[in-house]
Amino acid sequence: MWGIDTVRVRARAYSSSANLGSGFDVLAVALDPYYDEVLVDVERGDGLVNITNISGPYGNVVSGSENNIVVFAVKLLMERFGVSGLNVNISLWKGVPVSMGLGGSGASAVAAVAAAGKAMGLDLDPTTIAEVGGAAEALVAGDPHFDNASASAFGGLIVMLSSRPPIAVRSFKPEGVFFVVSAPKVNPLPGKTRIMRSVLPKSIDLKTHVEASSKLSSLLYGLIRGDMEALSIGLNDVIVEPARSKYVPCYNLVKEYSRKGGALGSVISGAGPAMLTITSKEKLDNTARWIEKAYTECGLEAEVKKAEIAPGVQTWIEETS
Amino acid sequence: MWGIDTVRVRARAYSSSANLGSGFDVLAVALDPYYDEVLVDVERGDGLVNITNISGPYGNVVSGSENNIVVFAVKLLMERFGVSGLNVNISLWKGVPVSMGLGGSGASAVAAVAAAGKAMGLDLDPTTIAEVGGAAEALVAGDPHFDNASASAFGGLIVMLSSRPPIAVRSFKPEGVFFVVSAPKVNPLPGKTRIMRSVLPKSIDLKTHVEASSKLSSLLYGLIRGDMEALSIGLNDVIVEPARSKYVPCYNLVKEYSRKGGALGSVISGAGPAMLTITSKEKLDNTARWIEKAYTECGLEAEVKKAEIAPGVQTWIEETS
Repeated sequence: MWGIDTVRVRARAYSSSANLGSGFDVLAVALDPYYDEVLVDVERGDGLVNITNISGPYGNVVSGSENNIVVFAVKLLMERFGVSGLNVNISLWKGVPVSMGLGGSGASAVAAVAAAGKAMGLDLDPTTIAEVGGAAEALVAGDPHFDNASASAFGGLIVMLSSRPPIAVRSFKPEGVFFVVSAPKVNPLPGKTRIMRSVLPKSIDLKTHVEASSKLSSLLYGLIRGDMEALSIGLNDVIVEPARSKYVPCYNLVKEYSRKGGALGSVISGAGPAMLTITSKEKLDNTARWIEKAYTECGLEAEVKKAEIAPGVQTWIEETS
Repeated sequence: MWGIDTVRVRARAYSSSANLGSGFDVLAVALDPYYDEVLVDVERGDGLVNITNISGPYGNVVSGSENNIVVFAVKLLMERFGVSGLNVNISLWKGVPVSMGLGGSGASAVAAVAAAGKAMGLDLDPTTIAEVGGAAEALVAGDPHFDNASASAFGGLIVMLSSRPPIAVRSFKPEGVFFVVSAPKVNPLPGKTRIMRSVLPKSIDLKTHVEASSKLSSLLYGLIRGDMEALSIGLNDVIVEPARSKYVPCYNLVKEYSRKGGALGSVISGAGPAMLTITSKEKLDNTARWIEKAYTECGLEAEVKKAEIAPGVQTWIEETS
């Protein structure tokens, strides 16, 4: 496979929304309005991993050096599988907004792992891709959280059965639900994820834990069964969102107007500032209009996108000349 | 309907296991090895509610006076629906073990409400039956918890979407799972439910809450999807069971031996001392044998029963002579 030739593989991984209200650190969903693409050229060499090109609408926002997450991800992959004697050159097309709570770093990492893995002839399952991608995120952002990486790797709505490696993930496609992703055009807060973790309560009383458990069960039951009333009950978190909502621009009005537009509810996407709204097919257009109206009334420009569940990471072997 | 005649209705409500590990106060299941039956005679009168007969294997353990929960339940029902001008005479056949964590008071209350409601011509749905039955339990036992009453009213595996009136409940039949209910023959602790609540932590750190959320999601996903691995992960609670296990006779050995017998796991049934083990059809007999062996090694007599999901409360209009 690696004579004098280069093996070129392209991978696409979609954006994702983690947390989902009472599903903090447990539920996440891959969504189709945004994706990252990674192109890797793998050839014989001394184990060098370089990023050679960055493009796409958010290409200018991410690091163009060896600090880019795609480099960490490919190096981790090679370490884990004991791959040596190969060089990897990486091109990143960055389509997922950065620091918005849309799983941008997870998408980049997952695409990089999937592309490099395929080019190296490794037969990687989504769990392994998510594990390596999530570990790369941890190198860049601190604590490992595998929820975004799992969503981008598996696609669909994912449940983290176990969040410590070896992780265990289930993925399914919820029936009858449609989404609106909305991201206000605000400058990313430096260290946002860390700050948004620091505002969370350190401890929770038992009664609140039980109420959160009930909401989480409603949410998961609603998603699996397509039960809209259960879903609607489950979207009202009592622990994480009350602590974070004041740091999310236009939070209250988006929640209020999404219901006016016929949606089941809105939650913070990841650690924000993007929000995710769940609605039905019939109410999708109207929901999006009401959310646009909310941001306008808040005096904010925002990207409001209708969204559907995205597939897992996809790879293509490309011709090299 | 109420000329000179008596209307006689019989109702049967099954035992239930609440809590289910990480599903504390949220998940419960109706199971068929035990049930209570209530026979009501409703006739014109001044609103008197009496208990006239108690029988059945556990009839001698419960109150034979107006303090019996069936009397509270029927009085609450009449109050809620403004029923007057009728007398109710109640016979209770008590087949659910008492103070074992098997939902005995819930079953009695639900059977009483369903029987009286039908005899009075009220068209009660399971939610209303569970609400009135659960409220009667609260009068007898303190805080209202509607999980056992909901399980007995709806049947199946129930999810409490909302535990405060108006309650919201979902019920479904998990596929491919079978149960072993085991109750050691120990004297009921007076005030057991209150004591078992008092040993619970008052607060929980966020990390533990997230881990419990992950277990709960695994459990619910596993039950809905028949995913045995998810179920097995979800049965290991990190909050309630660690606090309560030392008060449950033979807890550790039952958990250990149930796995040896091929089961997915065991949890405390309600507040104990009964335990509930979840297993597959193929492993059901072997699981039951290993659980018997556990209690024998603990030096305890125990009733070990294979169980299946039970239906909701059933009613029959009976002929009167």
